[in-house]
Amino acid sequence: MKAIDCPVPASDSELVMLAHGGGGTRMHALLASLVVPGLGDPSLAEGGDAALLELEGARLAFTTDSYVVKPLFFPGGDIGTLAVSGTVNDLAMVGARPLFLSCALIAEEGLPMEVLARVLASMRRTAEVAGVRIVTGDTKVVDRGKGDALFVNTAGIGVRTHDRVILPRSVREGDVILLSGDLGRHGIAVMAAREDLGFDPPIESDVACLHRATEALLAHPVHCFRDLTRGGLASALVEIGTVAGLAMAIDEARIPVSEPVSAACEILGLEPIHVANEGRFVAFVPEADAEAALATLRGVPGQEHAVAIGRVTSGPAGRVTLRSRIGTERLVVLPSGEQLPRIC
Amino acid sequence: MKAIDCPVPASDSELVMLAHGGGGTRMHALLASLVVPGLGDPSLAEGGDAALLELEGARLAFTTDSYVVKPLFFPGGDIGTLAVSGTVNDLAMVGARPLFLSCALIAEEGLPMEVLARVLASMRRTAEVAGVRIVTGDTKVVDRGKGDALFVNTAGIGVRTHDRVILPRSVREGDVILLSGDLGRHGIAVMAAREDLGFDPPIESDVACLHRATEALLAHPVHCFRDLTRGGLASALVEIGTVAGLAMAIDEARIPVSEPVSAACEILGLEPIHVANEGRFVAFVPEADAEAALATLRGVPGQEHAVAIGRVTSGPAGRVTLRSRIGTERLVVLPSGEQLPRIC
Repeated sequence: MKAIDCPVPASDSELVMLAHGGGGTRMHALLASLVVPGLGDPSLAEGGDAALLELEGARLAFTTDSYVVKPLFFPGGDIGTLAVSGTVNDLAMVGARPLFLSCALIAEEGLPMEVLARVLASMRRTAEVAGVRIVTGDTKVVDRGKGDALFVNTAGIGVRTHDRVILPRSVREGDVILLSGDLGRHGIAVMAAREDLGFDPPIESDVACLHRATEALLAHPVHCFRDLTRGGLASALVEIGTVAGLAMAIDEARIPVSEPVSAACEILGLEPIHVANEGRFVAFVPEADAEAALATLRGVPGQEHAVAIGRVTSGPAGRVTLRSRIGTERLVVLPSGEQLPRIC
Repeated sequence: MKAIDCPVPASDSELVMLAHGGGGTRMHALLASLVVPGLGDPSLAEGGDAALLELEGARLAFTTDSYVVKPLFFPGGDIGTLAVSGTVNDLAMVGARPLFLSCALIAEEGLPMEVLARVLASMRRTAEVAGVRIVTGDTKVVDRGKGDALFVNTAGIGVRTHDRVILPRSVREGDVILLSGDLGRHGIAVMAAREDLGFDPPIESDVACLHRATEALLAHPVHCFRDLTRGGLASALVEIGTVAGLAMAIDEARIPVSEPVSAACEILGLEPIHVANEGRFVAFVPEADAEAALATLRGVPGQEHAVAIGRVTSGPAGRVTLRSRIGTERLVVLPSGEQLPRIC
């Protein structure tokens, strides 16, 4: 559970708003002020994508995510591919090898069986390709109008075959920030499908399992991984910088964005660094190892376009500066809430 | 994931209905025909409350449940106590010691923060009393009208300190069926709160963590445990008998039901053996050990009223017969669907 220390704005103090789920400052405030202290376990405050546990001598990682994406099907994937990949990735991001998933379904009365069958088939196929097993599950049905077709929760267990702490707090000044590929395709693909924006050809989600890339990178002394989901690259860097007590500087010209995504972002008034991805991550690597790590990453199928986009600097915790293409510098500020609601 | 082999009735073949979540034959048919084969892992077909896994030499159990109870608060508990106890119990039911839980929230826009805080406080308190840690989480928000205030998913990891297979397939002919206490309080408490039935004094849910009772019973050669949630005692026995390929005979006069629950069931046209519990379980124990096991169980705080209610017999798989108070015998038949929807 990612949480950074922001005060709750007064207007948020009474009701949960859609913005509280959006990866922006309101979500961080909700987690930091209510959820993390409410549940009270120190592991929740670590800011990692998964908890690091020891159990009978085994080093485990454990994570959970609910998927409420709308629509259920979008170019490049569906809620099933998302539910498996997203949880596989949360395990990968703490340097664990994903092994076992659970699958808990909340179906709304009236959901076509055929839709459920397609989602289950996607989950099975994605799990098989990823080499993970879906070993336990649960099925609930809620009355019509009290859900939205289908919500899927997956929790995941992974194993760590090393004793390194791959977490935000391990990031160090001088670390180089590697980005695994182009930004923004998942968020734009889902938004286009939901709003029927009719991009031709359609923009496909980048949804993918990333554990083979992170496993390859463990050959290098990586400090932290983070997949770029809700809130995109911007949110990931601000969160990690906040936990690590460090600033970051990134270079816009180095951040790959495809032509169609760039055009769509312009139309929609979005910046690619704020848009969610489901198959992209950043890695924080000591400068001396960055070049070799980048070469390793580019050698993993699907990761050929990885780049170094900037570095970690001293400075105020969580301050992220972006050098624009024309050489100006500006602060990366998180939106308060929801630019693209329900994209995962 | 519990699943037994029933054909899908033709009328169910197209849309998910509320009845598919209710613990009756329709739910079993959905699981057996679609969910279990759709996901395809052999562990799902075991019919246990949790999957039994091995990982780096550690023997684990892993389970998940989503909680969609309505209303969120009811006499004796709330969705938070339920979400911790239910998952703790699923781990306990395979003979594991519960250790770690996840917490994934799906909040509907407009949920009062104060409600969320109360639920989180319940989860924390219940986890502390149970001796488990909530180590990872996720928070999603869905638009108003696309959820129902709050759904909570918990997944759980437990450790097995023995190599016994506590599963339905381990049940043997002649096993004595122990029941840990009186039936029906949870289902009736939730239904009364939802429909404002105004029982005075209110009937309190039996929601409770059962792992201390199951751990104590592991001193005996127990074959199977099962908590009596959706579908109640009837569903649990039919499911286990089906997987084990055996029949069962139980004695109505031995089944404890409190006076208020009995009266409420009469008013509502329900049978206590079909009503959900969240703090009751059955244990299957070889006849030679049954008396000692029952004494052990009664020695655990909260389990003083445990009783032996019947035994496992040869006969058609999943046939359960009930000897009534007046000595007649009848077949226990599962309802097709939902008597008490959304009680967990």
